[in-house]
Amino acid sequence: MITSIANPQVKRVVQLQKKARLRREEGLFVVEGPRMFREVPRERLEKVYVSSGYLTLPEHREQLAGMDWEEVEDKVFARMSDTQSPQGVLCLVRQREDSLDSLLEREAPLLLVLEDIQDPGNLGTIFRTAEGAGVHGIIMSRGCADIYNPKTIRSTMGSIYRVPFCVCQELSPALDRLEQAGVRTYAAHLQGKNTYDQESYLGGTAFLIGNEGNGLSPEVSARAACRIRIPMEGQLESLNAGVAAAILMYEAGRQRRNVSTSSVCHCPAR
Amino acid sequence: MITSIANPQVKRVVQLQKKARLRREEGLFVVEGPRMFREVPRERLEKVYVSSGYLTLPEHREQLAGMDWEEVEDKVFARMSDTQSPQGVLCLVRQREDSLDSLLEREAPLLLVLEDIQDPGNLGTIFRTAEGAGVHGIIMSRGCADIYNPKTIRSTMGSIYRVPFCVCQELSPALDRLEQAGVRTYAAHLQGKNTYDQESYLGGTAFLIGNEGNGLSPEVSARAACRIRIPMEGQLESLNAGVAAAILMYEAGRQRRNVSTSSVCHCPAR
Repeated sequence: MITSIANPQVKRVVQLQKKARLRREEGLFVVEGPRMFREVPRERLEKVYVSSGYLTLPEHREQLAGMDWEEVEDKVFARMSDTQSPQGVLCLVRQREDSLDSLLEREAPLLLVLEDIQDPGNLGTIFRTAEGAGVHGIIMSRGCADIYNPKTIRSTMGSIYRVPFCVCQELSPALDRLEQAGVRTYAAHLQGKNTYDQESYLGGTAFLIGNEGNGLSPEVSARAACRIRIPMEGQLESLNAGVAAAILMYEAGRQRRNVSTSSVCHCPAR
Repeated sequence: MITSIANPQVKRVVQLQKKARLRREEGLFVVEGPRMFREVPRERLEKVYVSSGYLTLPEHREQLAGMDWEEVEDKVFARMSDTQSPQGVLCLVRQREDSLDSLLEREAPLLLVLEDIQDPGNLGTIFRTAEGAGVHGIIMSRGCADIYNPKTIRSTMGSIYRVPFCVCQELSPALDRLEQAGVRTYAAHLQGKNTYDQESYLGGTAFLIGNEGNGLSPEVSARAACRIRIPMEGQLESLNAGVAAAILMYEAGRQRRNVSTSSVCHCPAR
């Protein structure tokens, strides 16, 4: 049992919570809470830390069978935790990144390209929505918030384990690769000619989503095959980046679903 | 010029930033930043505070013509501000709430009913999206975060001035009133029979959106005229409340827009 905050394991977890660089170097990230712990792919689980309080329930003890785990005194556990009300279990999970090519293996993929999304909660929510909408992969610029930030991980609600993604040093070569693979890129833009629901997303599709404050950079925006407009009533200048992404992803999902089920409501391709 | 944090006006602003009860008692709220300040409806502006640094630009001084404003030393201004990087202008604005009846005056209104949305940022983002989607009014339960919380106000990006809203002591009588007015209520629900895009939202429509963690209460959910499902791929249990609201509002907006413009893409009513 770990009983001191001076324990090197405690110090290491605290550092892994805080420092993106250390997470990168060690290829690990920290996951907290019973729900997120339950969903960790077993083969990526490195180490589990549980508080003494958590272990008082026999079913919690049973969960840990066959895992490399360690008991931590409640007070010390609170120091390891990134949350205000620690839930008694946290674990180290091995990072895993997909290659851009692997995201392009399937036919007519539905992809997201995120440029410099800064807010960790926003980034996590985009992952969560992407899983729900049936997105096949997410390509991130290096300027995005760290996907392994504890706040991002919490906001993904587990999607981080399931939605394939890659981080690109530069977006431009990635956009070249999408073009070669026949994936059509769409940038949401106030001056877009068509509204987003007037395009068909049945073929390979990638939505380009820009930074919360500044939108897409001119360079990336210029690379889009097509500019689409999300109509806005009132005097609004823009939508939240996560909301804009959600509207586009679910429109693509709607079109794809309605084609495959030949539902009553069917209005895709031009 | 205010040069001391002991000045009663400084203390009052700090308290108004922090305390929902005081805001309610005084019928005021605090708005920060040049952009949000510019958009305040003039007749609701009570008082403006500007930092000495802000006043060094002549155009900033001109903006203030005819307003009741006061200069505040930069350091003192920083203490009045709720943000980490104060932008030199904040103001007191009079609260204004609409009656439920006024939200029902127009034909076939598009409304949101929010039950206990807890996160101030989420609430503000829902207002922002609602304005963009053309929502005519928002009805909130008393358990929602305070709409006048500084974080909520920032997240609305000005929509707080423009989207009519009311807060109800109890949702049940409000739902009665919607029913009498012929407004159909839709609850997003995992067990909904139809997906959200298989219903028509051309008539009076209200989407019921529940709390982030628990969704709609059974009482409110049971009152919905119709349960609709937002399809989710993968292993997701739910979407973020703001994202779910966005998807529904923009589907309603899409249907209404496409009917009114007889656009190419037209697939509403059953």
